Amino acid sequence: MKLLRVGAVGQERPAALDAHGRLVDLSDLVAEIDGGFLSGDGIVAARAAVASGQLPLVAEALPRIGAPIARPGKIVGVGLNYSDHAAETGVEPPTEPILFMKAPNTVVGPNDQVLIPRGSVKTDWEVELAVVIGRTARYLESDRAALACVAGYAVSNDLSEREFQLERGGQWDKGKSCETFNPLGPWLVTPDEVPDPQQLSLRLSVNGTRRQDGSTKNMIFGVAELVRYVSQFMVLEPGDVINTGTPAGVALGLPEPKPYLRAGDVVEVEIEGLGTQRQTVGEAS
Amino acid sequence: MKLLRVGAVGQERPAALDAHGRLVDLSDLVAEIDGGFLSGDGIVAARAAVASGQLPLVAEALPRIGAPIARPGKIVGVGLNYSDHAAETGVEPPTEPILFMKAPNTVVGPNDQVLIPRGSVKTDWEVELAVVIGRTARYLESDRAALACVAGYAVSNDLSEREFQLERGGQWDKGKSCETFNPLGPWLVTPDEVPDPQQLSLRLSVNGTRRQDGSTKNMIFGVAELVRYVSQFMVLEPGDVINTGTPAGVALGLPEPKPYLRAGDVVEVEIEGLGTQRQTVGEAS
Repeated sequence: MKLLRVGAVGQERPAALDAHGRLVDLSDLVAEIDGGFLSGDGIVAARAAVASGQLPLVAEALPRIGAPIARPGKIVGVGLNYSDHAAETGVEPPTEPILFMKAPNTVVGPNDQVLIPRGSVKTDWEVELAVVIGRTARYLESDRAALACVAGYAVSNDLSEREFQLERGGQWDKGKSCETFNPLGPWLVTPDEVPDPQQLSLRLSVNGTRRQDGSTKNMIFGVAELVRYVSQFMVLEPGDVINTGTPAGVALGLPEPKPYLRAGDVVEVEIEGLGTQRQTVGEAS
Repeated sequence: MKLLRVGAVGQERPAALDAHGRLVDLSDLVAEIDGGFLSGDGIVAARAAVASGQLPLVAEALPRIGAPIARPGKIVGVGLNYSDHAAETGVEPPTEPILFMKAPNTVVGPNDQVLIPRGSVKTDWEVELAVVIGRTARYLESDRAALACVAGYAVSNDLSEREFQLERGGQWDKGKSCETFNPLGPWLVTPDEVPDPQQLSLRLSVNGTRRQDGSTKNMIFGVAELVRYVSQFMVLEPGDVINTGTPAGVALGLPEPKPYLRAGDVVEVEIEGLGTQRQTVGEAS
């Protein structure tokens, strides 16, 4: 099943894609696609309601698409989790997952404008497989238990300001949490439609030039291991998001002059089976 | 004004201390002390309602006290922000603030049990002045604008697992976000009762032994500068929390064998004018 949220910023309504690719309005069924919806029987109820054909279609022909879940409780990032990306940044692959956090209010819709922060000269892209949590995850002991906590998957662009992240003292979070820095969606795709999360191709282009072209098979730590691992250090809750890391091809890893994003650039992001994003880059005013 | 939340975990009700030190129940006035309450005229209305004497007192004589705000949107930590603490950890004082993030679901009441994570041998304490945001803060340009975004102050214990933070690869967040790791409160104290946030003494004891005894005058970057600085890198929203750093005296900085917390320990935390906390230490089961 593909769940999404459509409508103006702050006024998104829940929706789903039906078997014919039409947008079904879920507003009569549920107020919001959030942790409460995901942890209860929301997805089961939505699936049945969509299948019944009784729900209205979304009225607009081409509505704005928001992020597929309302504000997450937290966003956990995983650093250097693809062997090719670790190599391009010049560091040894990690022996256990590197975790950081991203402010939850960075989340925007998949096609919303991305803003280069004031003073930024090194705003970079990162296509990532986002894992959305559906059940409370605490001290999980197996991959099976970990995958049972996954509500679904989505495309994520984990934008990163490299100077803020790496050259301004301390922790990466400083370059990960800028306004608009996490386009998410278009859809939350339930696990039944993602038979193997470690066999998905990921691609990102800037102004039509392919920059990233990887596969989740090259993750150093896979989805199940990441969910299990993170749950040893913090309690994951329904609606939380894990950005599972990016493959090679970010601006940071390219030769000088590195092609960091500039106002007017167009970024296109895609993960096999999870949909596409398209962001125009602007500047924070 | 001193605002707080009383009642069982997950069922807290808003309350205030009146001029006689009595607990006034604010439930008839507002559903929750959160970002919406703080950003609107909630504090003004609460002040007037309490002064009117028309609101009921809290029925229980000694209710449990929760965190003074409902789940924050984010918690931003500031590292090594006291010259004496930087010295004890053996590093140079930072030239600009070191920021990290703490999962918002670490927040518990000021006297709730703190849990040592599974596998932890280095759980440490950190008394800190917490700043609670009351207005959206984005690219602030002056100290005055920054202080106008502060809804109030509270006592915070920024618990930290030093092995997870420093020896498990990558970023500090891994040791900052464990379950129960942010006792907050008892009160949110409005700025009119905190004439100078840089002249507050902070103290922390473990089992009656004084471990931290500092003053916010020794902050490297003060409250106004921190709020202004953070707003250059992310958008602060009403209800967000900044933990402004800890003075010297954490277990990490003491001679071997370092007295990290153990089950059964009792931690007492106090900031001048902001109240006291008392946590018993347990173990995550």
